[in-house]
Amino acid sequence: MAVDRAIGVGLLGLGVVGTGVAQTLLRKPSVLAERIGAPLVIRGALVRDPAKARALSPLPFPLTSDPARLLEASDVDIVVEVMGGEHPALEYLEHALRAGKHVVTANKEVMAKHGHRLRALAQQLGVQIRFEASVGGGIPIIGPLQRDLLANDITSLRAIINGTTNYILTRMANEGLDFAVALRHAQELGYAEPDPTNDVEGIDAAYKLAILASLAFHTPVTPADVPHEGVTRLRTKDFQYAKELGYAIKLLAISVKDDAGLSARVHPALVPQETLLAKVDGAYNAVEIKGDLTGTVTFHGLGAGAQPTASAILGDVVNVARALCGHAQPAAPPLSTPSKPAVRLRGLADLVTRYYLRMSVGDQAGVLAQIANVLGQQQISLASVIQKDADPAAKTAEIVITTHPAQEARMQRALEMLSKLPVVKEINNVIRVEPV
Amino acid sequence: MAVDRAIGVGLLGLGVVGTGVAQTLLRKPSVLAERIGAPLVIRGALVRDPAKARALSPLPFPLTSDPARLLEASDVDIVVEVMGGEHPALEYLEHALRAGKHVVTANKEVMAKHGHRLRALAQQLGVQIRFEASVGGGIPIIGPLQRDLLANDITSLRAIINGTTNYILTRMANEGLDFAVALRHAQELGYAEPDPTNDVEGIDAAYKLAILASLAFHTPVTPADVPHEGVTRLRTKDFQYAKELGYAIKLLAISVKDDAGLSARVHPALVPQETLLAKVDGAYNAVEIKGDLTGTVTFHGLGAGAQPTASAILGDVVNVARALCGHAQPAAPPLSTPSKPAVRLRGLADLVTRYYLRMSVGDQAGVLAQIANVLGQQQISLASVIQKDADPAAKTAEIVITTHPAQEARMQRALEMLSKLPVVKEINNVIRVEPV
Repeated sequence: MAVDRAIGVGLLGLGVVGTGVAQTLLRKPSVLAERIGAPLVIRGALVRDPAKARALSPLPFPLTSDPARLLEASDVDIVVEVMGGEHPALEYLEHALRAGKHVVTANKEVMAKHGHRLRALAQQLGVQIRFEASVGGGIPIIGPLQRDLLANDITSLRAIINGTTNYILTRMANEGLDFAVALRHAQELGYAEPDPTNDVEGIDAAYKLAILASLAFHTPVTPADVPHEGVTRLRTKDFQYAKELGYAIKLLAISVKDDAGLSARVHPALVPQETLLAKVDGAYNAVEIKGDLTGTVTFHGLGAGAQPTASAILGDVVNVARALCGHAQPAAPPLSTPSKPAVRLRGLADLVTRYYLRMSVGDQAGVLAQIANVLGQQQISLASVIQKDADPAAKTAEIVITTHPAQEARMQRALEMLSKLPVVKEINNVIRVEPV
Repeated sequence: MAVDRAIGVGLLGLGVVGTGVAQTLLRKPSVLAERIGAPLVIRGALVRDPAKARALSPLPFPLTSDPARLLEASDVDIVVEVMGGEHPALEYLEHALRAGKHVVTANKEVMAKHGHRLRALAQQLGVQIRFEASVGGGIPIIGPLQRDLLANDITSLRAIINGTTNYILTRMANEGLDFAVALRHAQELGYAEPDPTNDVEGIDAAYKLAILASLAFHTPVTPADVPHEGVTRLRTKDFQYAKELGYAIKLLAISVKDDAGLSARVHPALVPQETLLAKVDGAYNAVEIKGDLTGTVTFHGLGAGAQPTASAILGDVVNVARALCGHAQPAAPPLSTPSKPAVRLRGLADLVTRYYLRMSVGDQAGVLAQIANVLGQQQISLASVIQKDADPAAKTAEIVITTHPAQEARMQRALEMLSKLPVVKEINNVIRVEPV
């Protein structure tokens, strides 16, 4: 099993992350070689345009636009995919596995949508597929779920796994910035893409949650199983009210398993200020896992960036390479494929949680009674009420209500009824409060 | 490599942790069997007195007082050591390895003092030794250091890794309890031993730091390399002053690597209130690791208790067992033995840090000038001064000083000089401030 030669790496993609991986490999070859037992050598990188000028110059490895040149090269042992996007990354990964290559990928979209099949394929072919970099940047989280926490029955997973939105929400909360301004800052700093849809709509977090929940609960969870809601409706006012009530607002990815089944969802939530999750600021990420044995364990660190992502990718590469040198597992993937049928995935309708409602109402007597009456009809009881910002000219006032735990379906019915009350001018925002 | 039979476990010790392991194994055998690919069966437990009544009753496995009955049994694949203490645990572990058994241990003392040799022995014999439970209870920390963070050059490690003292310090800080009272509460709750020396003097934390630093810095670090100072000198007043200055007081285990070498130390420290470490309360532990790639990663969870410790032990057992079933690495230990000579371990003398000093002084004019003069002679400059609690009857006052970064050796000289000043009645406490 031991190799007397170098371990060859083929890079698919040479963007920010790919360049970070290459730079690290070139910066400290001897440290990595010592930990592996053999040198790591980049055999080449797949790029769209090999003629384009690169950050790395002169390049000590060839560029190619022909994927087969790397995927089928006899001197490539490990294919590292850092292109992102579903296609053609999926096809390249499958090609690499079928060519007998071990695969390390940072691709959350591919792993969320096709991870179960790719892992089964790798197992069948006797090669490894590793994807620590697909969730949480430089935070070890896939590894602990696949190995260290394996004796636990995990009951819940709550995470802040999108650094872009966490950066935006932190600036909105701390500096009172508008969403649009905070987003522009994030874009200027490179934390947000020119088209920020995937981040701000919660799609990226839903991909990552699908990956984590699949591992934590030993059942396939795909993005289609994860209802997601973004952060675009949040207003500075919501952060002010939340603070007054003792909460922060975070985009949470939540997956819970109980007797009724498994649920997974991504949405903004009010989180009590004294909890660790409320204190995760800026581009940081955190994943909180509850296990029957271990209790609550939280992993916190930088969720994105070239260097932290390179930490995860190269951690995977080093471990695969050590296996190739006979120092660790040879081929079989570290996680067993679930043999049971999938756990039933519950929709949001029977979710029970608490709610924060912000409404513009007519500034007149009896408004609160009417609202409380509608909520009461749906068996939803009030936990707190704040009434502020009366606007005498417009004859409106703002009411903020938090509720005791209530069923989501009932809350949706209540919201429909509230929106029809003449005294309710607008339901400005509805945010869930976690944990219940 | 695959086994068609059950995986046999021999338990050394059946105290609180051993009972937790056995109960978990008996409570969910099918979940564990599914994740492993074969059932786990306890073949027996080594105890001092097999006739004694046990929490587990009726016991579905035999008890023995003869270690060889388990260490050499042909149907024992994995020896789980949960006895604690250096001897005879060390001898049993070595015996087990030499008999070809894989070993899972929770023993911080043995791993801190002899881990390097035991790991080399296991590697030479082609068996595994795993010790996730030796540090941080249910928090995955050994695994991430041995595998997921392996591409990083780690520069520092700061940890709260003794739950007993963290519980005591939290109660002193939040409720103003005296050390002795908080300790008694901890003892009544089973968080502290009847003889609390190992915990309150920082010895337990030094063991754990030696283990973590060995893995993080790829060099042997033993408890003898870790100067340690306990929490017994801390007074309620120190917590009050610290709070006023914006700090919490925590027992920190710190190991830092820089161009001058490696340092490791355990002592109480003032930690800024807004940092994650300051917010680790009660019996929780946290480990903060800085890597050149990953940045700062923090792991937080329950640092002790039968269930969290069982999570770590059974995580190791499941992973060894999966290897025996052909699903993971067969034998080689997951960490390479360092081939370089050990990094130079620095003592405290050339440490540079900030300091908090609390002193009783004569209540007269010019005192502060005299103190500042002594500190100035040692090139130590003041960052803040609080003077309170003047006692007119005794003609004394209390002065609390924090300094800018200063060299430890100079501070020690300054303290000696200060203690000789007639105006200084007593130097009540000296606490380091972290990070610098």
